[in-house]
Amino acid sequence: MNQVIELLNNHRSIRKFQDRTLDRETVRTLVTAAQSASTSSYVQAYSIIGVTDKDKKSALREISTQSYVEHNGHLFVFLIDYNRHVELSKEKGEPIAFDKTEQLIVGTVDAALASQNLAVAAESMGLGICYIGSLRNDMAKVIEILELPKGVVPLFGMVAGYPDQSGSKKERLPFEAVYHENTYQSVTELKDVVDEYDARISAYYSERSEGERSDTWSDQVIGMLKQKQRLDVDDVVKDQGFLGQ
Amino acid sequence: MNQVIELLNNHRSIRKFQDRTLDRETVRTLVTAAQSASTSSYVQAYSIIGVTDKDKKSALREISTQSYVEHNGHLFVFLIDYNRHVELSKEKGEPIAFDKTEQLIVGTVDAALASQNLAVAAESMGLGICYIGSLRNDMAKVIEILELPKGVVPLFGMVAGYPDQSGSKKERLPFEAVYHENTYQSVTELKDVVDEYDARISAYYSERSEGERSDTWSDQVIGMLKQKQRLDVDDVVKDQGFLGQ
Repeated sequence: MNQVIELLNNHRSIRKFQDRTLDRETVRTLVTAAQSASTSSYVQAYSIIGVTDKDKKSALREISTQSYVEHNGHLFVFLIDYNRHVELSKEKGEPIAFDKTEQLIVGTVDAALASQNLAVAAESMGLGICYIGSLRNDMAKVIEILELPKGVVPLFGMVAGYPDQSGSKKERLPFEAVYHENTYQSVTELKDVVDEYDARISAYYSERSEGERSDTWSDQVIGMLKQKQRLDVDDVVKDQGFLGQ
Repeated sequence: MNQVIELLNNHRSIRKFQDRTLDRETVRTLVTAAQSASTSSYVQAYSIIGVTDKDKKSALREISTQSYVEHNGHLFVFLIDYNRHVELSKEKGEPIAFDKTEQLIVGTVDAALASQNLAVAAESMGLGICYIGSLRNDMAKVIEILELPKGVVPLFGMVAGYPDQSGSKKERLPFEAVYHENTYQSVTELKDVVDEYDARISAYYSERSEGERSDTWSDQVIGMLKQKQRLDVDDVVKDQGFLGQ
């Protein structure tokens, strides 16, 4: 196994950082690595906002509820961005559309590929990162705070910085449950594999929490998907010009 | 700049491969690296299908129209996957829902983060890769070929293998046009930067094509977004149980 693959396999989320901000050169290095990822048909349908303003960080923390959204080396917010293309098309007098599911997928994939390159680049420099999906707790408010125009959707954040904890690696689903060959294999055919995984995750939580928590992976994700969370994402995404009828 | 960042910055798509398939151990190494990426709330809402069957590869090539979808070291297809969670929830008698925009975003981000780790891992081993968004030319047909159940959407493919070309790196938008600080900055405020970029891209195409093609980046992406492409993605995604009303 080479060192890059070792780095990837050793990923763990970091949620506590030293009080030390990333300098401009580091931010530029990270964003350049992000931009080097593939982009669908060269469309580059994403942007990244670095949030350094204290009031804005504090307001975003309130949405996320996580303290590390405020206290970190740098806070990145990843956006789907078709506003850029719309403005350029206006100059040329050639109207474009981005209101179908295809464009939402393209923008989301573009932003996510860039973000993962940024994550890998950061970890290769000894920095730690954590994705902040919880900005979607109130997408409309994020749009207001960052003054985002139509055609732009804030997908998620990422905090990066000098780690002040070691973090712990969480075991993923067994290879067989995620990788299929030639046809899709239902999880029901892999019951034993998933049961064993669930038992290991339950033991992991139990050890970490000194017995206070012992839910399995299945319990955890079904519990989450039972809740009707973030229903407003539908309307906000439409308000920004996506998923029109 | 460290070697990992150099690797990321040197990415180029490879579209011609040696006639040599990836062995099982390599595939497992790549998928394990993919799985190590972050996943939203631990939900792991994606799967990967490795397609080795010749008839299936040929059928997928017809959809994509790219010869390298058939001729490569290995063909991966990345799926949003909530079927796994639905099956597990049935066993427990606890119904779940994934029909809102939030779950489409989560599944797309999860699959994309995994795919980018796979891409980086592959390139670190000297392999080349190319994303295959053109599987969305006929998503319904991909679902049929790979026998995908409800709750599963094929997002994109990725070919990997031993390169038989060096590929060429395509310059990305200038840093200033993608990275904003604290508030969104419209591309109209960056007209000079984008104009210069457009001129460089036009020169790049002109040189590569010996003068047959000289479009700018703006021309290219506006031309693409003017076409109403892949309109059926809307219906297929809904048929698979997503984006319900």
